[in-house]
Amino acid sequence: MERKKKFVKESLVLKSEILLPNDTNTINNLMGGRLMHWMDIVGGVSAQRHSQSLVVTASVDNISFSRAIPLGNVVTLEAKVTRAFNTSMEVYIVVWSEDIPSGQKFKSNSAFFTYVAVDKNGQPIAVPEAMPETDEEKALFKGALHRRDLRLLLAGRIKPEDATDLKTIFFPEKP
Amino acid sequence: MERKKKFVKESLVLKSEILLPNDTNTINNLMGGRLMHWMDIVGGVSAQRHSQSLVVTASVDNISFSRAIPLGNVVTLEAKVTRAFNTSMEVYIVVWSEDIPSGQKFKSNSAFFTYVAVDKNGQPIAVPEAMPETDEEKALFKGALHRRDLRLLLAGRIKPEDATDLKTIFFPEKP
Amino acid sequence: MERKKKFVKESLVLKSEILLPNDTNTINNLMGGRLMHWMDIVGGVSAQRHSQSLVVTASVDNISFSRAIPLGNVVTLEAKVTRAFNTSMEVYIVVWSEDIPSGQKFKSNSAFFTYVAVDKNGQPIAVPEAMPETDEEKALFKGALHRRDLRLLLAGRIKPEDATDLKTIFFPEKP
Amino acid sequence: MERKKKFVKESLVLKSEILLPNDTNTINNLMGGRLMHWMDIVGGVSAQRHSQSLVVTASVDNISFSRAIPLGNVVTLEAKVTRAFNTSMEVYIVVWSEDIPSGQKFKSNSAFFTYVAVDKNGQPIAVPEAMPETDEEKALFKGALHRRDLRLLLAGRIKPEDATDLKTIFFPEKP
Amino acid sequence: MERKKKFVKESLVLKSEILLPNDTNTINNLMGGRLMHWMDIVGGVSAQRHSQSLVVTASVDNISFSRAIPLGNVVTLEAKVTRAFNTSMEVYIVVWSEDIPSGQKFKSNSAFFTYVAVDKNGQPIAVPEAMPETDEEKALFKGALHRRDLRLLLAGRIKPEDATDLKTIFFPEKP
Amino acid sequence: MERKKKFVKESLVLKSEILLPNDTNTINNLMGGRLMHWMDIVGGVSAQRHSQSLVVTASVDNISFSRAIPLGNVVTLEAKVTRAFNTSMEVYIVVWSEDIPSGQKFKSNSAFFTYVAVDKNGQPIAVPEAMPETDEEKALFKGALHRRDLRLLLAGRIKPEDATDLKTIFFPEKP
Repeated sequence: MERKKKFVKESLVLKSEILLPNDTNTINNLMGGRLMHWMDIVGGVSAQRHSQSLVVTASVDNISFSRAIPLGNVVTLEAKVTRAFNTSMEVYIVVWSEDIPSGQKFKSNSAFFTYVAVDKNGQPIAVPEAMPETDEEKALFKGALHRRDLRLLLAGRIKPEDATDLKTIFFPEKP
Repeated sequence: MERKKKFVKESLVLKSEILLPNDTNTINNLMGGRLMHWMDIVGGVSAQRHSQSLVVTASVDNISFSRAIPLGNVVTLEAKVTRAFNTSMEVYIVVWSEDIPSGQKFKSNSAFFTYVAVDKNGQPIAVPEAMPETDEEKALFKGALHRRDLRLLLAGRIKPEDATDLKTIFFPEKP
Repeated sequence: MERKKKFVKESLVLKSEILLPNDTNTINNLMGGRLMHWMDIVGGVSAQRHSQSLVVTASVDNISFSRAIPLGNVVTLEAKVTRAFNTSMEVYIVVWSEDIPSGQKFKSNSAFFTYVAVDKNGQPIAVPEAMPETDEEKALFKGALHRRDLRLLLAGRIKPEDATDLKTIFFPEKP
Repeated sequence: MERKKKFVKESLVLKSEILLPNDTNTINNLMGGRLMHWMDIVGGVSAQRHSQSLVVTASVDNISFSRAIPLGNVVTLEAKVTRAFNTSMEVYIVVWSEDIPSGQKFKSNSAFFTYVAVDKNGQPIAVPEAMPETDEEKALFKGALHRRDLRLLLAGRIKPEDATDLKTIFFPEKP
Repeated sequence: MERKKKFVKESLVLKSEILLPNDTNTINNLMGGRLMHWMDIVGGVSAQRHSQSLVVTASVDNISFSRAIPLGNVVTLEAKVTRAFNTSMEVYIVVWSEDIPSGQKFKSNSAFFTYVAVDKNGQPIAVPEAMPETDEEKALFKGALHRRDLRLLLAGRIKPEDATDLKTIFFPEKP
Repeated sequence: MERKKKFVKESLVLKSEILLPNDTNTINNLMGGRLMHWMDIVGGVSAQRHSQSLVVTASVDNISFSRAIPLGNVVTLEAKVTRAFNTSMEVYIVVWSEDIPSGQKFKSNSAFFTYVAVDKNGQPIAVPEAMPETDEEKALFKGALHRRDLRLLLAGRIKPEDATDLKTIFFPEKP
């Protein structure tokens, strides 16, 4: 049976929030933990859309919080599937921050979350292929393999010598 | 002036939670986003204890969620500083899950969060050294350098060929 | 000085949520009150985007909840400004419900919220004009006048006999 | 079988809240969405009391928010059934705001919510009649018919020419 | 200057809540901690009403939770000041539980909370006298002295042999 | 069959929280109700650990809130079983407050909560004995009998003349 295919754009999910006092720390900036909570929700909806199934969060790649987001700002999260594996999907999540009165808008951060499609008993199930169309989607699709190797390597599930893709990155001069 | 020193154990922070319905997904397991929110809080308290200052979350290393934690379980988070840099601290967070009636307890996952000590205006300030005592603390202290290289590499702030430490770890024999 | 103009589409805001246990009533359907809370947030962000200012909710037109939205569904709210008056804006909010595993998606309901742009002291301030482009946007723009009459009438701020526009709509033939 | 009857006063429900930071917007006033959430809860309890059954929110008439309610104020919501139809009930909700130290108290706003009594499967069930006693209760009872016509008209479920009651309002001079 | 007086009934505050999933424990009954949180809010509003000032919770007398309150029940809390001392007030809080479909209603529990009136800097300020009118109010007023003795005794602030009132109550005949 | 025994220290549970805006009252101090909510959670986990069963809160002894805990402070709750009766356990909960930048730390308050171990149907079940080891644990173990008498007396479940232990406290001079 042929595997179902879906376009990356079909999994696009947006979520806007206004920062409230309880979302912020003592110096009135968004707490990293709250943001990760929202990222997980928006990423989960995106993976659900792609797989048309329940999903569970399998892993989160490293995230850096380079710029503070102050109380009262509007935060917009944007998620889409970059690539589907057998039962898992990598989702790319970008976070934008806007100080609306001043018109200041900046990209706060981005991250890759991985979700596994499951049935009602929590057992993994197969997902459709994700087909990239734009250049950005294609680059994300391609990079997904490297990131997956790195994830498996960091989780101790493959050995460094088998991370062929990564080697190329670390030793670019000696192909 | 000599830099202040503090023992790793002084930064130990524990936090227990009972999983409530709103913490779980449709199949009644703890959502990854909620757990990361709690990890950020407990890690932040640990970094505050070490630095005796306000802190902001700077980055989160990759986390994997290998085992589902069901509704009603008790989750215990344990955080301690592994190593202090100039103004930042790496915090190691371990999450335990207990199904109390059955007596089943397992290590759910672990992660490294990095925090920066800041003053009331959000400006970075120097932190005391962290002194490991036990073997586990010493191993975590030593590994902190590699993880930091990896973090900088993944954030694109150093080049792969300059991550000498990492090369040695991932590819002990020359390729 | 000429009044600033902005396209309706610039105010588009999306917000997706997964229904959690605490969002639902005893028979596991989304509570109307929770949905109105979300509608107010997404509508407020839309009005902020259009006016580039803080906003306060001035009124909500009548809303009907015709179909139950069950626990676990994904709810997507979509808001855009339909028309701007001097200091106020009407925002149209549509709510979609998706049962993702079954692929069932339906329009749950829609509503018109009105927001007033304010400065830091809560005083009303002028807002840009809203320019509709598509046929739907134009129809919403045109209807905004009637709805405003109805709102003023229902609030007892104009008399029924002065609501000329409404008379024409409700009773096109002379009674 | 004769239909059961209950007095309006039996459905009276009160709910007081202290405004907390997360209930307020950037200029420290209660957000409309949070207030509507509370209105829906107190109205729902009132309709449950009258019908002695579960209820779902069917519709909300237009609400205007004419005066800001600042952080720290006590908000008191008061709900009672105005009239019962076959399976639905109209509930009148009044909101009071008090700044206790200054002794300033004002009526913030009011609204009509409609609820449908349902069984465990969500199917509508018959409700008792509501019997008004005081002059205010009788006026609300009488007005309920006009408001219902308007609701049906606005929802497109009756034609303007059939809204006999409303006509009288719009064209008072020509009965 | 004569001390201001207010009737007990002026401090009456009611608060109804519907039990939601997150308010309950693993066997779907209201958690004691959530109930105490609500008791503190309703008691605080009552003390604010009486004192026309900000208040802080000073103490809570012992509470017993004798009967479970299941998910979906309506809980109604009723608070009123029983007696005012110099800067503090004792508030009596009664909790009712209703299972509305079955019509089952019972008194769940009751408790005495003590609040201190404070100014903006948190300094205690004088409060009006509380004047009881009904028999129940008079009994509560009278008992307030004994309860206060017991409170001071339990807090180690008076010695058992000086709690003359208590002795008489607990041990009416000389031992 | 011999009754199972467990050491008091096995039931130790810690929980750290950072005070957020919504946890505080108008003058930015932790609300008593929120603190009691947290105390109930940490005490419940401790009782669950000891009994290896579900538990419900049976009673709370009187609590006094002598010192305000300001916004931004870290609150640490520490709970352990003091003594086990047939199906119930007394848990001692101590609350610490830290203002981390200033290094100021103080014991905020303490309380005794009683929990009953229950099965899935809410029926009480037997619990293991609690064995104290340290001097503090032994003192708490011994005092548990007096506190239990007082609890029963206050709840009107025993008569003063039967509260033999308490008599000794009230009339120390006449044994």
